[in-house]
Amino acid sequence: MPSTELRRPNSSDYETLAELLLEGKLLTSTESIERYSRDESTRAEALPWAVVLPSSEEEVKKVLSWANEGPFPIVTRGAGTGVAGGSVALAGGVVLSLERLDKIISVDTENLTATCQPGVITETLQRQVEELGLFYPPDPASADTCSIGGNVAVGAGGARAVKYGTTRDYVLGMRVALADGRLIELGGKNVKDASGFSLLQLMVGTEGTLGVITEVTLRLIAKPKRRVSLLIPFLDLGDAARLVHEVTLAGILPAVAEFIDEVAIEASAKHLSRELPCEDKARAYSFICLDGDEADALERQMVSIGEMAKKHNALDVLAAIDEGQQERLWESRRTLGTAMKGLSPVIGKADVVVPRGAVPELVARIKRIGRALSIDIACFGHAGDGNVHVNILRRDRSEESWDTLLDKAMSETMSVVKELGGRPSGEHGIGALKRAELERFIGADALELMRGIKDVFDPRGILNPGKVI
Amino acid sequence: MPSTELRRPNSSDYETLAELLLEGKLLTSTESIERYSRDESTRAEALPWAVVLPSSEEEVKKVLSWANEGPFPIVTRGAGTGVAGGSVALAGGVVLSLERLDKIISVDTENLTATCQPGVITETLQRQVEELGLFYPPDPASADTCSIGGNVAVGAGGARAVKYGTTRDYVLGMRVALADGRLIELGGKNVKDASGFSLLQLMVGTEGTLGVITEVTLRLIAKPKRRVSLLIPFLDLGDAARLVHEVTLAGILPAVAEFIDEVAIEASAKHLSRELPCEDKARAYSFICLDGDEADALERQMVSIGEMAKKHNALDVLAAIDEGQQERLWESRRTLGTAMKGLSPVIGKADVVVPRGAVPELVARIKRIGRALSIDIACFGHAGDGNVHVNILRRDRSEESWDTLLDKAMSETMSVVKELGGRPSGEHGIGALKRAELERFIGADALELMRGIKDVFDPRGILNPGKVI
Repeated sequence: MPSTELRRPNSSDYETLAELLLEGKLLTSTESIERYSRDESTRAEALPWAVVLPSSEEEVKKVLSWANEGPFPIVTRGAGTGVAGGSVALAGGVVLSLERLDKIISVDTENLTATCQPGVITETLQRQVEELGLFYPPDPASADTCSIGGNVAVGAGGARAVKYGTTRDYVLGMRVALADGRLIELGGKNVKDASGFSLLQLMVGTEGTLGVITEVTLRLIAKPKRRVSLLIPFLDLGDAARLVHEVTLAGILPAVAEFIDEVAIEASAKHLSRELPCEDKARAYSFICLDGDEADALERQMVSIGEMAKKHNALDVLAAIDEGQQERLWESRRTLGTAMKGLSPVIGKADVVVPRGAVPELVARIKRIGRALSIDIACFGHAGDGNVHVNILRRDRSEESWDTLLDKAMSETMSVVKELGGRPSGEHGIGALKRAELERFIGADALELMRGIKDVFDPRGILNPGKVI
Repeated sequence: MPSTELRRPNSSDYETLAELLLEGKLLTSTESIERYSRDESTRAEALPWAVVLPSSEEEVKKVLSWANEGPFPIVTRGAGTGVAGGSVALAGGVVLSLERLDKIISVDTENLTATCQPGVITETLQRQVEELGLFYPPDPASADTCSIGGNVAVGAGGARAVKYGTTRDYVLGMRVALADGRLIELGGKNVKDASGFSLLQLMVGTEGTLGVITEVTLRLIAKPKRRVSLLIPFLDLGDAARLVHEVTLAGILPAVAEFIDEVAIEASAKHLSRELPCEDKARAYSFICLDGDEADALERQMVSIGEMAKKHNALDVLAAIDEGQQERLWESRRTLGTAMKGLSPVIGKADVVVPRGAVPELVARIKRIGRALSIDIACFGHAGDGNVHVNILRRDRSEESWDTLLDKAMSETMSVVKELGGRPSGEHGIGALKRAELERFIGADALELMRGIKDVFDPRGILNPGKVI
């Protein structure tokens, strides 16, 4: 554990900081920093002491040297779209927002890499490389608002992870400012590397606790030439989950293999003011997207999935081939996060992952927990890779009864996940909100090692204290 | 740095150790331990002090507790097929051989995972899962003799990494005995995980310096239904390397994309006593393997590669479709390591990696180094992912002149690699032989962090001292 007592900067400390930066990069008034008080979790909120907005790596290093000297707690923040409270200064602290480090430095078409600053919005990068016929596969549902730096910091996944892997699998290089302001370079543009301990892989998913990422180099692939999407309504959620698993076992590797349950259907219909196919009967949908270069191959895979769907009692199989159709079909899945808030402004979120074959059992048991506690729990997400988003809805319950209920529902859910050999987070990270769960999954010895690593990188404990470990 | 002075066990220490194990598991006589004196590098040799052969995780833990108490240096060894001296007790030590932990514990066809002990031979695992219609893609050239534990310890790659990634990408879970004999479990059967620092990813490639892997869970995929192989002879090595890169840029993702140069052709022809196609003229070959489920798609890709090959002055394009043909074609690539020893029993090996587009320049510049020093340097390997095996041949040179020449050739090669943005090892690891190179690639600050991590895991410094960092 760090031996130093962290301090709150006083006005003279802020003056020192302000002198290190160009004007307008240090915010301290409540109205200017209020928007840095929360993330998308609806459950973590705290006004930071101040916000700094560096616009260069050099400035990031200066802010860190200043903070390490203090020592002052620093909470690094990307686009603030996290859902585990990782970028919220819950125990106080200065927020270091990377939003102004938002340049795509280069897209290297010869080596198939992109190098960018952490504040680049994920979708901006996706579009820019796609214009060059290339493809950056990781695709978090919040791609239009989240940032690459945040994606790396939490190890973000997204719908296409089932085929293409998560952000972790695309990070080739990084520049990282350490707690004391030194800078290290990890990796490069090489797609293979066995040269010493992989500090690069270690950094992914550490949520600003080991260093501040100032630049990322990502691996790109050739853009698949075609894609087709299937929407398959079911009477039974278990059938929807089982279909996705059977497709995987059959050797078809969809680019996306999702499911949503009836609570999510209700949220989506309300949010989009649009009827979904078979909505009157459907209590679950599978969403499957196939991509590749060969039209015949996609066609054959679609037919084969259609047959499997019928065996699993699908109510219908709706195929979308043109881009507009596919876009409309995906809208209901992509906007689910926002849509859920229409049903319930306060939501307890979990992002659990279990071995792929255990998804049907997981969702059945979570539904049972909901029924026993008389609360609505929506399950949807990445069935193809065992990653299920669990949304526990407060709806219009009073705050007192809610807190107890949520704790109970969350704790029982986590027990089921543990029993099935799963883990508390598949792609959202631990942040502050899942921290209490971590030890029972990874054990005291592993946690002690993580804390030891933290002390090596950040001996004074200034980087995102109280998060993850 | 560890504060303790490591000791050499005395006879009473060995008695204590022998009591912890079943009979026959502690070897001390020179003739019984002689075969643990070297790996496949031809350049690292030292008789260990003793060899222990535990046959259970429990025994591994006991050996480590004993060693940590000593403290005695422990050199963990898999199948001894490394080429960087990582498993050789160069500074003295007790070799902990995992060869008897050789069980495949389970192949889980529901979750698409395999769980095995570290001593399982890679090819044994590959065959067992293929009988079930599944596929374990990592395929080091030494698959028939190397072990899964060793593959994880060095982050092994292999020919199929260009499409499927390296061992790292398939490790889902691990059981690890720590230096003091405690056991931690990392990951599980989940294909996604964002739950705390990834100690799992950190462990991969640490070559026995942080803990002893006692069990590994690996991700499997469905076995591709078809594969075809192409052998393409060229007059010019640059053309062979450029073809492979152009194939990648064209959006074709071969399962394998290799090249070999004329020195390697000479070695192979001699080793297999067989003429290679166009051998009289060819000074380089590209080997390309395509796999997938759709025959038409493979056919179209083959045609398209054939056209690209002609544009790059290929002398011919030889396609092999039936398995026997493909096997013969691959034999010359797979046996290259052994074949090279036929030309020169002593070889200086490097396993460098550069950004993919830089391979043609890399090989041209290495060839220039060879010509300037009048030594034969063979270049072959995984052109598709920028990973080139450099073999510097002593042939019948005297030992004195050789050492100086080798140092010079290696150092100049590494300078070129550094200049091109590469790294000293793509898949063999750092071990002992590449350790001197590491710092100039990763920098003093990153090295200091690695050493800090080492101290957290192994405070007394008993695990493979003097290796990697």
